[in-house]
Amino acid sequence: MTHTIQFLPHNKQITVADGESLIRAAMEAGVHINASCGGGGVCGKCRVRIESGEVEGGISEKLTDQDREKGYRLACLAKVTSDLTVRIPVESEVETSRLTQTMDRHTARAMTVNVEDLKQDGLFIPPVEKIYLELDPAVEGDNRADVARIMHHLRIHHDEHRLTMDLSLIRRVPDIIRQENFNVTATILRPVREDGKNEIINIEPGDTTNRNFAIAVDIGTTTVFGQVMDLQSGEVLAQQGEFNAQISYGEDVISRIMYAEKGDGLATLHKRVVETINKIIKGIIKKAKIGTHEVSTITLAGNSTMTQLLLNINPSYIRRDPYVPASILYPPFHATEIGLELAEHTTALVYPGVSSYVGGDIISGIMASGMYRSPELTLYMDIGTNAEIAIGHQEWMVCTAASAGPAFEGGGVKFGMRAAKGAVEDVSINPATYEPMIITVGNEKAKGICGSGLITLAARLLETGIIDSRGKFNQELDTLRIRQTDEIWEYVLVYEKDTQIERDITITEPDLDNLIRAKGAMYSAALTLLDEIGLKVNDIERIILAGGFGSYVDLASAITIGLLPEIEPDKVTYLGNGSLLGCRINCLTNSLRQQVTQVVNMMTNFELASTPSYMDHYMGALFLPHTELNYFPKIKAKLEALRK
Amino acid sequence: MTHTIQFLPHNKQITVADGESLIRAAMEAGVHINASCGGGGVCGKCRVRIESGEVEGGISEKLTDQDREKGYRLACLAKVTSDLTVRIPVESEVETSRLTQTMDRHTARAMTVNVEDLKQDGLFIPPVEKIYLELDPAVEGDNRADVARIMHHLRIHHDEHRLTMDLSLIRRVPDIIRQENFNVTATILRPVREDGKNEIINIEPGDTTNRNFAIAVDIGTTTVFGQVMDLQSGEVLAQQGEFNAQISYGEDVISRIMYAEKGDGLATLHKRVVETINKIIKGIIKKAKIGTHEVSTITLAGNSTMTQLLLNINPSYIRRDPYVPASILYPPFHATEIGLELAEHTTALVYPGVSSYVGGDIISGIMASGMYRSPELTLYMDIGTNAEIAIGHQEWMVCTAASAGPAFEGGGVKFGMRAAKGAVEDVSINPATYEPMIITVGNEKAKGICGSGLITLAARLLETGIIDSRGKFNQELDTLRIRQTDEIWEYVLVYEKDTQIERDITITEPDLDNLIRAKGAMYSAALTLLDEIGLKVNDIERIILAGGFGSYVDLASAITIGLLPEIEPDKVTYLGNGSLLGCRINCLTNSLRQQVTQVVNMMTNFELASTPSYMDHYMGALFLPHTELNYFPKIKAKLEALRK
Repeated sequence: MTHTIQFLPHNKQITVADGESLIRAAMEAGVHINASCGGGGVCGKCRVRIESGEVEGGISEKLTDQDREKGYRLACLAKVTSDLTVRIPVESEVETSRLTQTMDRHTARAMTVNVEDLKQDGLFIPPVEKIYLELDPAVEGDNRADVARIMHHLRIHHDEHRLTMDLSLIRRVPDIIRQENFNVTATILRPVREDGKNEIINIEPGDTTNRNFAIAVDIGTTTVFGQVMDLQSGEVLAQQGEFNAQISYGEDVISRIMYAEKGDGLATLHKRVVETINKIIKGIIKKAKIGTHEVSTITLAGNSTMTQLLLNINPSYIRRDPYVPASILYPPFHATEIGLELAEHTTALVYPGVSSYVGGDIISGIMASGMYRSPELTLYMDIGTNAEIAIGHQEWMVCTAASAGPAFEGGGVKFGMRAAKGAVEDVSINPATYEPMIITVGNEKAKGICGSGLITLAARLLETGIIDSRGKFNQELDTLRIRQTDEIWEYVLVYEKDTQIERDITITEPDLDNLIRAKGAMYSAALTLLDEIGLKVNDIERIILAGGFGSYVDLASAITIGLLPEIEPDKVTYLGNGSLLGCRINCLTNSLRQQVTQVVNMMTNFELASTPSYMDHYMGALFLPHTELNYFPKIKAKLEALRK
Repeated sequence: MTHTIQFLPHNKQITVADGESLIRAAMEAGVHINASCGGGGVCGKCRVRIESGEVEGGISEKLTDQDREKGYRLACLAKVTSDLTVRIPVESEVETSRLTQTMDRHTARAMTVNVEDLKQDGLFIPPVEKIYLELDPAVEGDNRADVARIMHHLRIHHDEHRLTMDLSLIRRVPDIIRQENFNVTATILRPVREDGKNEIINIEPGDTTNRNFAIAVDIGTTTVFGQVMDLQSGEVLAQQGEFNAQISYGEDVISRIMYAEKGDGLATLHKRVVETINKIIKGIIKKAKIGTHEVSTITLAGNSTMTQLLLNINPSYIRRDPYVPASILYPPFHATEIGLELAEHTTALVYPGVSSYVGGDIISGIMASGMYRSPELTLYMDIGTNAEIAIGHQEWMVCTAASAGPAFEGGGVKFGMRAAKGAVEDVSINPATYEPMIITVGNEKAKGICGSGLITLAARLLETGIIDSRGKFNQELDTLRIRQTDEIWEYVLVYEKDTQIERDITITEPDLDNLIRAKGAMYSAALTLLDEIGLKVNDIERIILAGGFGSYVDLASAITIGLLPEIEPDKVTYLGNGSLLGCRINCLTNSLRQQVTQVVNMMTNFELASTPSYMDHYMGALFLPHTELNYFPKIKAKLEALRK
């Protein structure tokens, strides 16, 4: 159920889901409400008047009885339960007119795996299939070998060919086959290459065809996520995330590699990440109420360093010029071979990477996004400390990686933090008063600013003229929020009393500088790739954002600061954890496993360090939104209009 | 160098190698010399007179000075060093004339592996090949992954495709590839199936192409033999045999299986045979002066029980009706997987079997014999306690196994023994005096009778009328050698004083009965197979004898007793240890590895127990040579002539 809200005096309208908080609805509609505490009813500033319709809640001691009778409510505490007309108290007419100029806000549409679609397209063919076989029991006159009996039956009755079985399973067959009088279930692993073998990886007594599960794991440098899926229905039964236990040996891949180079550092890091994965496996298997032996396959993806550490391969040459990974493709292997606590027959597949810095996590996301089989020119961006970018379509693809620095993940920013409770995730600034409206994760008092909050904040600061295109504060503006502390200019986003940290939360010029470098690195990487293949920014027909980041970022803000190229917001989709999604799809449809090799082979990798044009593009991108405003005609027009 | 010997008064002529002992030459020529001590100069009975030419040795205190001057020598001590005329002292003219009727003696021609022939036929393509690669070192602008660099080079410069590499090797590549500045040697394992993958199993720094070795192992129930080969030249560098350490847990396969069924019996037997093989590997590697890591592949063959025990697979169902082996084909695996002390990359292949009692050792021999690609209808016989028989040619093959009992291996025979020193291996009997001439292994005083000796002895007893076609003694003959002890009739082959065992060595009616059952089982198995496919004995164009046995058996004798069908002796060849030979060829030419699957698939196995005609054939074969003498027209004629 949805409801339509009419905001006055701006005359802005928005449709939201039943139960949405009124303040989030206002933020999404681009309607500024004074609100400084993050949305938890503490500051009492977000008074609005309900002129028609009903809300649930919104009553607080911050409102007098008289206020309540007049229909005033605190927007942060009010839930939308019907169509509404809501009036925002404003301090001047000027303010009202200027507020209406604020651009609409957009978060990107999410892409998800639709199992029904896969089924309809005939793609729901998991790489491990269970087939129940009622074999003829061995008798005088038919005493074929046990394994030959199984293979013969599969050939004749199930049209299965090119079958193999390894020694460890052959060992178990004679006893298993006789447990239920020659009625068995065979688990068949489909080949990664189309011309490969169909490997029988397990034989179980009786009919177990309805118990066939798979696990998908994204191995991030910081966090590891796992999901367990039912291969009958395709559904996710349970999921779990854990910090990568390697984190105590270094925060980023370079420090991990350096640790791996010392003594038995490699073995230690290998063991730690395997421990983390085992913890997740144990957790999700328990939640899903299945047995370890019922998991037929596991797919894992990580960047090249995470992949090599997982597989216990010296990652040293990844960080040394000329940055060489051990391998692109890895063959399927037994999960137990690397210490995963799964059954002996469980087969593991690790996503291939393209280079030292465009790893399996990116390829996994690209496979999940489907861009490799789309005719549209697509820009794929995985935004993080290491930003990976791919551009292309069904006929070709190029990719590269740029070191963006930690700004998008809250690093290198004075009050930066991860997108945890209390992080400012959305901001509006009153263009007349320069007073902010903030919303925090969990609607708690603010603790800091997360990546998506930072981008929106920077966009708002730029739009309101609080900062210029170089990210420097306008020291002339009539507001106490712009100030100098220890010779550093900053803007006070939340005053101490409305925080949980007993300090003013500010954004400083060095913070903005870091953000500009980060977005500059991303944007110029994309521009460099386009340049190398002779295309322009406006040839891009579609953008896919990956990484946890993409789910929350406000597209308009991201374009305003020049992180993303100017494009219609409905052409942007986000994948969320694309790496995990790719692993999941990999478990559901074997055609993906077969296509990934082609995708890796068609992908041309560019090393930015050896691409001369990159530095020029980077220097040009160190402005908000860019030195060359013609790349951003709408932003240019909007900023000009706002500054008038 | 060879010499021709003319034996008088029989006027028999033979050509022998320089240095051959004169008594063996006489035996081979079918010339009877009284000799009862086995050929060691002890009894002094083998006096012969050298009428022309020279011998070396032959002088003994058993000869007077006068004898020596006249040219008398002891045949057993004399070596042939020139063309000779030799007169055998005989006791009567009758004797002389009858002796000349004795059939010529023949041992079968040996088949061996001729590496030069393989090379000329373009078949000398070992399944593991080493290729030296001078890779382009990784530099800025060419930072492909290490594994991709190797594969790309192999594709472009060596036309190698469908390449794979497993995780354990990928792990070692980054460090190895940089040891000699990107100059490496790749070891490639060819696929067992033609459409399979070429697996890179090892990467070594620098050029090691001239160090590539293979091991062949025949795992017998009693003895295990191993050879190490140079895959550059194809030559055998060293070989070694050891008793199978499982022997203390049971002498035959059934008792081994019963042991395996108890507690951790399987694990114990598995470990024991692996220990035996490891001992051989250690020995031959040391003798050949090579390193363990230089062995690229090992091929092993054994009967189905030995194979399953080697691979640690429960053999229980082999001995239980309906006698089912675990598998026919086994995939290649890492030698270390079963505990062999070889390098991690060394690949092991085990010969496939056809059924519980026609195992990998037989298939190996069949592959070595080449019968599967010959147009001639061939009878392949592996003579032993378990006798395996295959009949066929390039278009079809049938096989079966018969339990012959241990007679051919010296079991179930009062003075039976293995073909060790002191075993009577050849016999002649004077048809007038019924006195025997014996030759023992090692020319020592006799200890017992080995399988080939037993066959020849039985043939001589039959020819001289000492026994009848039922194997019963002619109690009327005028010789003390035929006697009754404890109500059992027997013939004294060696009197106590000429033995090492302080007892008369005899052959008894029960011994002959066991021999008749054994040969009857073999012959009737062959007849049953022929019957099932609608062919007759005289359709057989070629016989191949396998097993240590085949090397020594006198063909004429084997035909005389009806062990082998009547066939021209030059159509019989012996393979010796066919199983070992097949393993060796398997290491030298990959086409064999690929063909063996086809051979196994084209082979139809018959279980004699479920083939009704077998019992009839068996009953008919319990005579010397057979109830139906028309199967043996020449033997029939000869026996009739001799008895006149």
